[in-house]
Amino acid sequence: MRIGFIGLGVMGAPMALNLLKAGHTLTVHRVRERHQGLLEAGAVAADSPQEVAEKSQVIVLMLPDTPDVEKAVIGADGVLSGLQEGSLVIDMSSISPVVTKDVAASVRRAGGEYIDAPVSGGEAGAREGALTIFLGGSEAVVEEAMPLFQTLGKNITHMGEVGAGQATKVVNQIIVGLTIEAVAEGLSVAEASGIDAGKAREALSGGFASSRILEMHGQRMVNRTFDPGFRIRLHRKDLGLALAAAEHHGVELPGIEVVARQMDKALAKDWGELDHAALFRLIAERDV
Amino acid sequence: MRIGFIGLGVMGAPMALNLLKAGHTLTVHRVRERHQGLLEAGAVAADSPQEVAEKSQVIVLMLPDTPDVEKAVIGADGVLSGLQEGSLVIDMSSISPVVTKDVAASVRRAGGEYIDAPVSGGEAGAREGALTIFLGGSEAVVEEAMPLFQTLGKNITHMGEVGAGQATKVVNQIIVGLTIEAVAEGLSVAEASGIDAGKAREALSGGFASSRILEMHGQRMVNRTFDPGFRIRLHRKDLGLALAAAEHHGVELPGIEVVARQMDKALAKDWGELDHAALFRLIAERDV
Repeated sequence: MRIGFIGLGVMGAPMALNLLKAGHTLTVHRVRERHQGLLEAGAVAADSPQEVAEKSQVIVLMLPDTPDVEKAVIGADGVLSGLQEGSLVIDMSSISPVVTKDVAASVRRAGGEYIDAPVSGGEAGAREGALTIFLGGSEAVVEEAMPLFQTLGKNITHMGEVGAGQATKVVNQIIVGLTIEAVAEGLSVAEASGIDAGKAREALSGGFASSRILEMHGQRMVNRTFDPGFRIRLHRKDLGLALAAAEHHGVELPGIEVVARQMDKALAKDWGELDHAALFRLIAERDV
Repeated sequence: MRIGFIGLGVMGAPMALNLLKAGHTLTVHRVRERHQGLLEAGAVAADSPQEVAEKSQVIVLMLPDTPDVEKAVIGADGVLSGLQEGSLVIDMSSISPVVTKDVAASVRRAGGEYIDAPVSGGEAGAREGALTIFLGGSEAVVEEAMPLFQTLGKNITHMGEVGAGQATKVVNQIIVGLTIEAVAEGLSVAEASGIDAGKAREALSGGFASSRILEMHGQRMVNRTFDPGFRIRLHRKDLGLALAAAEHHGVELPGIEVVARQMDKALAKDWGELDHAALFRLIAERDV
């Protein structure tokens, strides 16, 4: 299949490589030096999202934030300008569910189809084709695109119409953010009480406190290694989406409000590029 | 071994039964009608903690709160009044780590040994002998008592000296409390966004949001079944211990402060006897 890929970041680049390896023709945008491997594997560079769209049946987006997706699709030299009749736009970025519906409507008006397909599972999941993927889109379109998603991920769920994928990703980021705060506060109290945090992490793993976050991020906290992973800056962006969704629906999220404030404190300390497990430092290292 | 058991509640009764089944002689205190099965299985009733202690080499406590343990051990007709030289007191209740050290010191002065051994894993874990147990006590005493703990639990960790078990339980309750809030806020946003909460729970289980709480308490939230389980009233008590420990050590727990306030709201609604998963109702059912 002729696939276009826009957004060759930490997540996007290995995802694009997996699509290439699966035998697809790949047109990519914004090729940097570090992407030489992609070109050597057969990817072709394009000068604009428009050119990517002109050459592709499926256009995959993996961009940092809502405005990036809007610009790449609706902006000048954007995907819409080059969209072929019947092409499919798949947005795998994590962006606003509300804006997603608007962008999808524009794509449909231009004769294309749209799926929102945000992911969870981090860089390792992207590299290993083992991402968790939340799909929003019509049944028929999702069914047709399923083989592509199976190339990129393992746990793939069709959540509902366009926007439902992004809404589920927001839910994911709420739970992950608060669970990180849970482990950060817990292990901080362990250390303050004179208990070995690594031992506590292991002891707790057998019971109700067990979670993927305790396992992975808990270990990062114990080791004080906060290389991303997933950046605090990006998670804070996702919590902005969560708080906006909550306000829109009249739901109060007192826990997420705290986590968002903690992340703001971390950003003020210039920790935006650290892994979100670094929220631990705000609690544990009181003189930071 | 001659074992005494004080505190035949939801957790204590099945634990006592497991000790009986393992072939120990059991003296129990505060036998009620519902404990007829224990007597039929061979347990002998005693009139006071003192009498329990007089007849036992090991006295196990499984009581609701710190004052209950103080009363049963140090109070009139308490364990100390009947303690035999070299007997071992094992407190499996979840109580203050600070008071634990005081009670342990009293027991040692009276010629006994002391282990704090709070548990996680709920009623099912108690019944199946599959509790997670956090031990505080000296190496030699813990080693000698290990077969008893293996009758009651599966994931057993010696965390450090007396008090370290209780401190670890506090950490457990911090992580569990905040993870429940995480799942409650996440699934509430899912429902408000028109997503099937049960489907979201499953979709999220493959990624970083996965936890024992999402699996078990998430299902309770989806089903709106809040029979305990673990009562909000008791978890709020544990968060009191957490906040006291944090204050003692100069650690700030902004997330747990929120969860404690949510639990206070639940108590004000007379939900103290509901499972702690019912915190979901505060977020999801805005008109409750």
